[in-house]
Amino acid sequence: MDAIEVIRAKRDHHELTDAQIDWVIDAYTRGEVADEQMSALAMAILLNGMNRREIAAWTQAMIRSGERMDWSALDRPTADKHSTGGVGDKITLPLAPLVAACGAFVPQLSGRGLGHTGGTLDKLESIPGWRASLSNDEMLDVLRTAGAVVCAAGSGLAPADKKLYALRDVTGTVESIPLIASSIMSKKIAEGTGALVLDVKVGSGAFMKTTETARELAETMVALGTDAGVRTVALLTAMDRPLGRAVGNALEVEESVEVLAGGGPADVVELTVRLAREMLEAAGVSGKDPAKALQDGSAMDAWRRMIAAQGGDPDALLPRAAETMTVEAPESGVLTRLDAYAVGLAAWRLGAGRARKEDPVSPGAGVMLHAKPGDLVRAGQPLLTLHADETARFARAIEALDGAYAVGPASRPQLPLVIDRITA
Amino acid sequence: MDAIEVIRAKRDHHELTDAQIDWVIDAYTRGEVADEQMSALAMAILLNGMNRREIAAWTQAMIRSGERMDWSALDRPTADKHSTGGVGDKITLPLAPLVAACGAFVPQLSGRGLGHTGGTLDKLESIPGWRASLSNDEMLDVLRTAGAVVCAAGSGLAPADKKLYALRDVTGTVESIPLIASSIMSKKIAEGTGALVLDVKVGSGAFMKTTETARELAETMVALGTDAGVRTVALLTAMDRPLGRAVGNALEVEESVEVLAGGGPADVVELTVRLAREMLEAAGVSGKDPAKALQDGSAMDAWRRMIAAQGGDPDALLPRAAETMTVEAPESGVLTRLDAYAVGLAAWRLGAGRARKEDPVSPGAGVMLHAKPGDLVRAGQPLLTLHADETARFARAIEALDGAYAVGPASRPQLPLVIDRITA
Repeated sequence: MDAIEVIRAKRDHHELTDAQIDWVIDAYTRGEVADEQMSALAMAILLNGMNRREIAAWTQAMIRSGERMDWSALDRPTADKHSTGGVGDKITLPLAPLVAACGAFVPQLSGRGLGHTGGTLDKLESIPGWRASLSNDEMLDVLRTAGAVVCAAGSGLAPADKKLYALRDVTGTVESIPLIASSIMSKKIAEGTGALVLDVKVGSGAFMKTTETARELAETMVALGTDAGVRTVALLTAMDRPLGRAVGNALEVEESVEVLAGGGPADVVELTVRLAREMLEAAGVSGKDPAKALQDGSAMDAWRRMIAAQGGDPDALLPRAAETMTVEAPESGVLTRLDAYAVGLAAWRLGAGRARKEDPVSPGAGVMLHAKPGDLVRAGQPLLTLHADETARFARAIEALDGAYAVGPASRPQLPLVIDRITA
Repeated sequence: MDAIEVIRAKRDHHELTDAQIDWVIDAYTRGEVADEQMSALAMAILLNGMNRREIAAWTQAMIRSGERMDWSALDRPTADKHSTGGVGDKITLPLAPLVAACGAFVPQLSGRGLGHTGGTLDKLESIPGWRASLSNDEMLDVLRTAGAVVCAAGSGLAPADKKLYALRDVTGTVESIPLIASSIMSKKIAEGTGALVLDVKVGSGAFMKTTETARELAETMVALGTDAGVRTVALLTAMDRPLGRAVGNALEVEESVEVLAGGGPADVVELTVRLAREMLEAAGVSGKDPAKALQDGSAMDAWRRMIAAQGGDPDALLPRAAETMTVEAPESGVLTRLDAYAVGLAAWRLGAGRARKEDPVSPGAGVMLHAKPGDLVRAGQPLLTLHADETARFARAIEALDGAYAVGPASRPQLPLVIDRITA
């Protein structure tokens, strides 16, 4: 078998055989198939597609390229959540300890932000002392201590996916549902979780701009998880506006702690509780109400144990950006629109995100929203507060917000927070 | 501008702008655009196509990546021929001196064989002493001495094409009419010929298997040449059976010398004379009949001058393979079929061709045909003679010929030698 044969097959609209897929993933991981060959194949896949069997074989081959974790020795079921990424999406932070407090273990391998979307690890790293990198043994210890662990995936997990993801990033081959689905699911299946809830975001601030493409991605991933023996369900949720009121790193940790303390923005609370219920149901755990666990302090206790077990100080003051700037409401009326992508781009330019994988992020930078779509605002009242380490960053953030919000006489319909639920 | 923007544009079915094409070819030549990015773009072009304007801009950008030769100081018009490659296609060898003898200069940059198709330089190199590599000044000297020169393209000519061709070869992105047409025409336009006749082969032994795809390629190339100010015409010619009776390197030189001596196989003579007339007409030269120049010795004189001017001995004995094996006609009747690809593959396996660019070829290896489709044969008469340096090579050549020929009660229709003529 050789790379050209596999490339030509997909180029000429044939189905790839399981043997071709196994060979090409393995040979690419070993360096026998060159980057320029894999990028040509990735473009052929993006343009000509893969069917369910091909995507499943591709996912399994990526899983087999590395280690597969196993939590079956634990005395509780495991459940995890994966979000396709959005603006202000800090849900993992309250969710993981909440589900732990309700009786399931949450072993979450998470990622960093790139572009306008934030990354869970970047957010948690704004807590002084907190460490993202754990060995498998440390991961198990944190899980036993706190019931939940959120950390970076080690290099041994799906190395084929790591290599392919970096390649797709520079070759215009990211936007392929088969490749996105297999990338996400290879890591989640290799992570060893027994149940998985997928939060597939829809809207300007999300990767999937329409409900149709989001549904296709969700259905593909649910099928992959189910076939691999992971009880998988997906929610399609709104990302046309930011989630919650905080967009940034430390700013989102603070908002998450408010939610764990029984307060916080209504949309963050609603989505956190809904996802917790889905995870517990998929894991087969009953008897505890997540909404109550946010009120009775048990979720907060799990959070404090989880942060402390990874070296963080849950009581430490979080970093603050040195400079702020307020954006005021241009007139009185109803805030009819606050675009998620524009706010994400502004936060990125303020320093909350990174342009390249090796860039650092500013822990204090970001955007606070003082109103959400549907809220009444008065002319001149603060609409947004921008946070940055240097005032020089404000100009391009303001540019990003040009046309991003509107005030009108009456509310306009917007996407419901939870748009749909997809099961196998 | 960046590579991802250009890749995405073509991926998403947009036309590339002239500025995008100029930038990506230049940046690729300089190494700023990486191989894995160019191969993704090449696959997007292969699958989504380019229109005439894009192909013209792509071709011009490849020409501008290197030097452009100029023969305008010469006192005669220039004309060249390019064949898309076939089996037994030695036409350049008699044609270049023939056209020179009739009054046009022929400055031909030629190539080597790869796979089952032969290469003009490989054939000429079987003549003791003959050199394929000439400086531009040496090329001019040979042209003035002999009226025709056939040599290898220097590294300064369309370097973007050289780099891209090598990349396409290993990434399954060869079979794209826009990329094939721009590759051929960038070299021929940069070569500086005033007139160009394209011999686009059709059939099993050719790159283009059907008349339809061959016509599309021919029309694309004629338009590119015409737009660049080169008087360009194309013939579609048959490559379902081999051309002539010799397939190999020295074997084809011997057959070419027979044609220059006024003899040789009818199909080789017919195509040589037809192409010579097309070249002379496109170059605006009249008054000499190529058919006569083959009979009166003037074409042979030009050949001898051309070979000698490049260090070759036109009187030298050519290398012969040490071993031969005869394939006999299985029954008596009409030879109804002799497949070009199978004969090319057999010659390749006998040592006449190369698997990789850096491999040597055997000058003496190849296949001699004792009958052509339409000829009467008797059971047991020699049909083919295989030539190789080692008897070990015969088995796989015989395998290649399995099912390649048939003898029946009556002739079957075959493609006419010249199928069509394409002009601007």
